[in-house]
Amino acid sequence: MSVVLLTGGVGGAKLALGLSHLVAPGDLTAIVNTGDDFVHLGLTVSPDVDTLTYTLAGLSDEVRGWGRTGETWNFMAALRALGGVDWFNLGDSDLATHVERSRRLAAGETLSVITADFAQTLGIATRIVPMSDQSVATRIATDEGELGFQQYFVGRHCEPRLLSLRFVGAETARPAPGALAALADPALTAVLIAPSNPWLSIDPMLAVPGLAEAIRAAQVPVVAVTPLPGGRAVKGPTAKIMGELGLPTKAGAIADHYHGLIDALLLDEADRGADMALPHAFADTIMVSLEDRVRVARAALDLAQRVS
Amino acid sequence: MSVVLLTGGVGGAKLALGLSHLVAPGDLTAIVNTGDDFVHLGLTVSPDVDTLTYTLAGLSDEVRGWGRTGETWNFMAALRALGGVDWFNLGDSDLATHVERSRRLAAGETLSVITADFAQTLGIATRIVPMSDQSVATRIATDEGELGFQQYFVGRHCEPRLLSLRFVGAETARPAPGALAALADPALTAVLIAPSNPWLSIDPMLAVPGLAEAIRAAQVPVVAVTPLPGGRAVKGPTAKIMGELGLPTKAGAIADHYHGLIDALLLDEADRGADMALPHAFADTIMVSLEDRVRVARAALDLAQRVS
Repeated sequence: MSVVLLTGGVGGAKLALGLSHLVAPGDLTAIVNTGDDFVHLGLTVSPDVDTLTYTLAGLSDEVRGWGRTGETWNFMAALRALGGVDWFNLGDSDLATHVERSRRLAAGETLSVITADFAQTLGIATRIVPMSDQSVATRIATDEGELGFQQYFVGRHCEPRLLSLRFVGAETARPAPGALAALADPALTAVLIAPSNPWLSIDPMLAVPGLAEAIRAAQVPVVAVTPLPGGRAVKGPTAKIMGELGLPTKAGAIADHYHGLIDALLLDEADRGADMALPHAFADTIMVSLEDRVRVARAALDLAQRVS
Repeated sequence: MSVVLLTGGVGGAKLALGLSHLVAPGDLTAIVNTGDDFVHLGLTVSPDVDTLTYTLAGLSDEVRGWGRTGETWNFMAALRALGGVDWFNLGDSDLATHVERSRRLAAGETLSVITADFAQTLGIATRIVPMSDQSVATRIATDEGELGFQQYFVGRHCEPRLLSLRFVGAETARPAPGALAALADPALTAVLIAPSNPWLSIDPMLAVPGLAEAIRAAQVPVVAVTPLPGGRAVKGPTAKIMGELGLPTKAGAIADHYHGLIDALLLDEADRGADMALPHAFADTIMVSLEDRVRVARAALDLAQRVS
């Protein structure tokens, strides 16, 4: 059996790590949001790709919740002393990823190839595939004007009121070859959607023409894990954004959002009592320990098997 | 009185620091070799400019002899782990200089403006002026083929036999505005040439059309400090290169090299007995302590005054 996971940042990386303990090496493909990618200080930064790579390589900082463990910040201190902009923190070790990726992109390599090479070099068995090798930039219309994703997320801590989203470049982007290959794999048994923010992290992927179609064409169960256990986001602005979009912060709104794409939704124990026609199951979806991550991964795979 | 210093790397930076203790703040201009500059990992690295900047800012590592004090190397370790090239070491703090400079160059700013801003931000009173805002690349024909400067100097530790040098881009380069302004300053009293490698560090500057002419037009004493005290280079391949070029490793060969440009040469005490028609003086030119640096600077200024 092979499995495809659509994932954004930290929550998705946790689920990917859980899945990597259940799926045979090489049979798990994580298609990753690149709508958050941006060029900062001349370097191409791919936050979700890197979060997943560091998590699967055992390099992520579990306490801070982002970036690399054992990280140092001497680059930032020196940059600040030179009068450089410092609203986006880049750790000394993390910088190597951005510098080397930028160098290889400038030399004409694709993000897919670079990402796969980094994963292989770091000993990761899971295939990490950016959603597209073309640039897709999530931009957020707010009551303070339109902001780039990182300006909104990191620079303004998601404080401005979100009015709408657009994914610049999506119309002409194509799914990365590895994404289409994984979805066309005859051994594919399930597509999972991580408990990432549906609007900020998953929608940019679905905006790439051909990706949602390839998911449907795979004719395997598609199961999402709720990003809103008990009506609250574990981390990040999911609930805030839903409110700003006029949606109830309930599991049903997640099911509605993915209507036509998913076959089932894994809810949290806190969602018992939800009124939902869509096939669903319940699990403790809060992922702190590795055991938690494996448990949620297993529950999602079980639900996929149940609806297949 | 104002003073101009032509300088390359470490030895020149030491003399500049000495001069900065004798010349009033703002009245010392260091014109710096940029023939060593190169693009590495997509970043524009200016080794001589940075060595001078770090030295004058009190940030240089006096023990290692290059780079920044208190430097960490986590970027390099992470780069190595990703399979990146690691023959040229970039410290975590040092990286900030290259990343911020590269970003500003890409935004259309000149190396002069960026260098001056960095110096001001770091509290440096000396004007640091790259020799040109256009790219001039020192390339070295050797018995192993032609090498870029850093390939030769860092990558191959100056081991290949040097056959000849060329300075790619020099023909169309122009002296940086600040260099010409300093040389045209009516208050200018002396031009000094640092004890840097004449072939590798000073010649690229003299290859920029208009710079040597501006020095001569200034009609002030031009004094070089020997880079070959007692026939030996303090550091670096000066003696080795002179041998490969078929020159005697004697002070006279330095005087001959600068013939027509300099009015006097500051020799080392170890050079007493040298047969030299050119006006000269002797000093202990080995610069270890700050006191040494000030002493050599004073001796060079005294010699300039003597021949004026």
